[in-house]
Amino acid sequence: MELAELAASIRKGGRIGLAKGITLAENEPSLASKLLGLIGTPGRAFVVGITGSPGTGKSSLVDRLIEAYRKKGLRVGVIAVDPTSPITGGALLGDRIRMTEHAADPGVFIRSMASRGWSGGLSRATSQAIRLMDAAGYDLILLETVGIGQSDIEVVGVSHAVLVVLMPGLGDDIQVSKAGLMEIGDVYVVNKSDLEGADLMVVSLLSLFRGSSRSPPVLKVSALTGDGIGTLQDAIERIRAPFAAGDAGLRIRSIRGMIVETARGAAMEKLAVVSESSAGRLAKEVLAGTMTIESAAARLAV
Amino acid sequence: MELAELAASIRKGGRIGLAKGITLAENEPSLASKLLGLIGTPGRAFVVGITGSPGTGKSSLVDRLIEAYRKKGLRVGVIAVDPTSPITGGALLGDRIRMTEHAADPGVFIRSMASRGWSGGLSRATSQAIRLMDAAGYDLILLETVGIGQSDIEVVGVSHAVLVVLMPGLGDDIQVSKAGLMEIGDVYVVNKSDLEGADLMVVSLLSLFRGSSRSPPVLKVSALTGDGIGTLQDAIERIRAPFAAGDAGLRIRSIRGMIVETARGAAMEKLAVVSESSAGRLAKEVLAGTMTIESAAARLAV
Repeated sequence: MELAELAASIRKGGRIGLAKGITLAENEPSLASKLLGLIGTPGRAFVVGITGSPGTGKSSLVDRLIEAYRKKGLRVGVIAVDPTSPITGGALLGDRIRMTEHAADPGVFIRSMASRGWSGGLSRATSQAIRLMDAAGYDLILLETVGIGQSDIEVVGVSHAVLVVLMPGLGDDIQVSKAGLMEIGDVYVVNKSDLEGADLMVVSLLSLFRGSSRSPPVLKVSALTGDGIGTLQDAIERIRAPFAAGDAGLRIRSIRGMIVETARGAAMEKLAVVSESSAGRLAKEVLAGTMTIESAAARLAV
Repeated sequence: MELAELAASIRKGGRIGLAKGITLAENEPSLASKLLGLIGTPGRAFVVGITGSPGTGKSSLVDRLIEAYRKKGLRVGVIAVDPTSPITGGALLGDRIRMTEHAADPGVFIRSMASRGWSGGLSRATSQAIRLMDAAGYDLILLETVGIGQSDIEVVGVSHAVLVVLMPGLGDDIQVSKAGLMEIGDVYVVNKSDLEGADLMVVSLLSLFRGSSRSPPVLKVSALTGDGIGTLQDAIERIRAPFAAGDAGLRIRSIRGMIVETARGAAMEKLAVVSESSAGRLAKEVLAGTMTIESAAARLAV
């Protein structure tokens, strides 16, 4: 398929075109950049970042949000960022399978993406995939990442609202403060509300925020039973309302994040190529004492 | 203190000099680069990366390893990488306090470092701190990071051995496969061996590796009681022995990692500076339709 043809297919909402576009973003980000240049950036989609430790039930929560938003008539795109094995380079797609119940719904598009080892958790490819889904007419994009570390910081950059998902028994409020999640969430979700300690966790979180300058909602939900999902959706809607009404603030924030991600991806890509060809040789020179790490790094400078 | 004077103080093993050097690495990495250029890189220290989800007891394990290696007469440096809040930029130093029992021991140097939001979990500063501790004569450096995501990948790059710390009840083998940790560990540690499910977890991990091309040791320990720490130390020693005997393989691997980290840090620093001054303005242009995200990103290119 020609790039222009692909662009047209995506703009018309073609699922195969969109899938091809995202594959292009994964494998040839520079070409995907060209594709996005042809498509343009409508910026209509509202992007919800969903982060939290493994095992907190993010995927089940995403399932519930798909259901809830389909009932409202929104077209929903899902990007599940899987951490890449640094050795095989492959993503581990574990529980994506659970989402297949929505696979037959033409208003839902689900895609797993491998986070690139080089550029960090949420790569340029993810940012490109968001824009491709936006161009394909999805109204809401749920971006699920495995929390903690760099990917959290990046999820803030490209999302319009960030949900931090927690569960009772994983160290309670420590879970939040230790992982540096305290300031990135727009909504805090205590999932698995049927477990012992859920109420206590809500209380700890609320008291944690009492000492800070902001008070994001802390909600107890059960993705398993659906309890609390309506309240969570209301909380998301309160953030989405000004965006949907055309407010530029959130739009500028996410565009800024995407610009920086795109530049970062390009820089890391250049550095990866240069490192691949010469870092091993430079390391030997450093070991031999003929070069310092500083001067070797300067040789790699992009 | 002059840079040359600081270099001399660190080489002589001065604690205040070392502390100042690491602060320099945190705040002025380019200056720290110059300092390291003056000091040189002895490359004598063996670096053990320790990674795993929050709550798995990495800090207590580090405590036990300090004890065990002090008994062997090694000088031990500890770098605890705390995730930085993307908003305040500050590290959350929670359980570092537990390590203060070693604070009076001149053969132990413990330092918490904030991971930089920009360049990812394990920053250039961390890599510089490792080299400063090495120059100051520490024989063993324990590098504790909050696992999952980019920091894991980086910990592999600069460490000579990587311990992946797990605990029963956090999703067992899924914990490993989902987080992409399956291929980065040289030793897998199931901590909190007194908890129900520890044996089962060991079995699951072993069977997970049975299907792969390698079979790293999977050890059950209790950092709380000290059970299994001896066996863990033996496993580390088996990796350290060839290194201590002068084998170049591991040295080249970590030097390569440090070269790449240093280059990456410099590139990200440049990009951060450029973004700070112009990404917001470029985002407004993209919103207005006078520029694409691609062309805006190209303007930021470093």
